[in-house]
Amino acid sequence: MTQFMDVHHGMQGITDEELQRAHAADLAIEKEEGVHFERAWADPVSGTVYCLSEAPSAEAVRRIHERAGHPADEIRPVPLSIW
Amino acid sequence: MTQFMDVHHGMQGITDEELQRAHAADLAIEKEEGVHFERAWADPVSGTVYCLSEAPSAEAVRRIHERAGHPADEIRPVPLSIW
Repeated sequence: MTQFMDVHHGMQGITDEELQRAHAADLAIEKEEGVHFERAWADPVSGTVYCLSEAPSAEAVRRIHERAGHPADEIRPVPLSIW
Repeated sequence: MTQFMDVHHGMQGITDEELQRAHAADLAIEKEEGVHFERAWADPVSGTVYCLSEAPSAEAVRRIHERAGHPADEIRPVPLSIW
């Protein structure tokens, strides 16, 4: 399993409730691909959302986000991290 | 205080040791601007580094990263988040 950071653009005006709902939609189906979405951060002004996940592949992350209705614009493995 | 996500490009080949050293350089001076760098994630292949901080402003984050020798390419407030 590897950690991935993905980025969504064009989500200007996203509210806290919409972020929670989008995250819940991911959680509802993530196990089907062995993915777990751990954290998410949003900037409603620029419309940028960052999601941190643990997953078997970037493709698995891509498929879950697409099926949940919010395809990611960038998905990158982040094998190095600082806690 | 607000959380910020910043992104660095062009760091292809970054090692775990280099990431740790860069983070330590931020920590050494961050208090001078009231910033705290909480987490960082790196993709050595695309050369992308993501940093999560808590800070009084994006300018404060920008100045600490610049003085530490690794200016950020993007800095965005992320007032919404999921833990």
